[in-house]
Amino acid sequence: MSHAHDHPSEIAPRSGAAFEVKAGQMLTVIDPLGGQVADLLTIAKADIREMLSSGRTLDYAERIYLTTGDKLYSNRSNVMLEIVEDTVGRHDFLLTPCSEATFRLCYDNEPPHRGCHGNLAAALAPYGIEDDAIPVAFNCFMNVPVDGVTGTFKVLPPLSKAGDRIVFRAEMDLIVGLTACSAPASNGGTFKPIHYEIR
Amino acid sequence: MSHAHDHPSEIAPRSGAAFEVKAGQMLTVIDPLGGQVADLLTIAKADIREMLSSGRTLDYAERIYLTTGDKLYSNRSNVMLEIVEDTVGRHDFLLTPCSEATFRLCYDNEPPHRGCHGNLAAALAPYGIEDDAIPVAFNCFMNVPVDGVTGTFKVLPPLSKAGDRIVFRAEMDLIVGLTACSAPASNGGTFKPIHYEIR
Repeated sequence: MSHAHDHPSEIAPRSGAAFEVKAGQMLTVIDPLGGQVADLLTIAKADIREMLSSGRTLDYAERIYLTTGDKLYSNRSNVMLEIVEDTVGRHDFLLTPCSEATFRLCYDNEPPHRGCHGNLAAALAPYGIEDDAIPVAFNCFMNVPVDGVTGTFKVLPPLSKAGDRIVFRAEMDLIVGLTACSAPASNGGTFKPIHYEIR
Repeated sequence: MSHAHDHPSEIAPRSGAAFEVKAGQMLTVIDPLGGQVADLLTIAKADIREMLSSGRTLDYAERIYLTTGDKLYSNRSNVMLEIVEDTVGRHDFLLTPCSEATFRLCYDNEPPHRGCHGNLAAALAPYGIEDDAIPVAFNCFMNVPVDGVTGTFKVLPPLSKAGDRIVFRAEMDLIVGLTACSAPASNGGTFKPIHYEIR
């Protein structure tokens, strides 16, 4: 499948995909309908033990909300991605991808679903990446305002409108996992597709 | 070395240790002099691929500051520890253990040090745990207030006074890595020991 075409690739609601992005290429993640989260995970093509690290990234950014100009670091403190455009300005980098356990522990009346974690694990398995190795993803468009005094946070509907996007420049050759998020609270109670482009 | 004695074990300044704690035992981490951080990492004894997960824990707690009554979850969404006593009430679970890269990227005039990451990696290597697998640790006594509006945070001196402690009950058999933190900003510019007890 070529990604060098005029139409973006689509990830169906509550599903995931994996693909490669080369150093210097631009990855655009688009919310085509608005109000939809996309969990993004990157792994170094050269060594799958090198992965996106929320803890390293937040430490170096000295900020929990990231946007244009911010760099996303690996567990080896190498830059994996830089955010070069962001029409939303609010994303989450605190919470793990939703999983079967998320549905069990956080939702009383939702049928179980393998969630973004299960979708990422399935999409990344052909690259040799193990389920247990999946860390906190960069959750594009996820809106998790934190109360700095009490430390409590809420998972609110995304601020993204139809066509909003975030663009990343790859700083190394990457394996990328990307989802259209499966958790009701994260997506305003509806499940929509995610589009992406690689240029 | 037995831990079932009257005197706590000591971790020297800027160093780390690894040891085992059985399900049902209490692990007490003590700041003997005050103002000193201890990075805590737990791994399931039964399978070292199961590790402490900041992202799962924060998601289920719906809070970034954890204290008495909060449970610390693994990447498999099992409870590893419960906080049963806490005389400080402020700890960090956002940032990775300090490392050689932390000193390179965050400090202009500090000689490099392998940091808590290097100390944890060395202490945990005999258990087969790889350097790359070390995630965000639970940073006891680390004081990282977040501005909820801008998302910026500061690493301030710990609120802990001499003799302050946090007590965890193990909910499964664990391998534990624990440090006396090596980063100047996290410890008010001085490096002090950490004590711990297992009962």
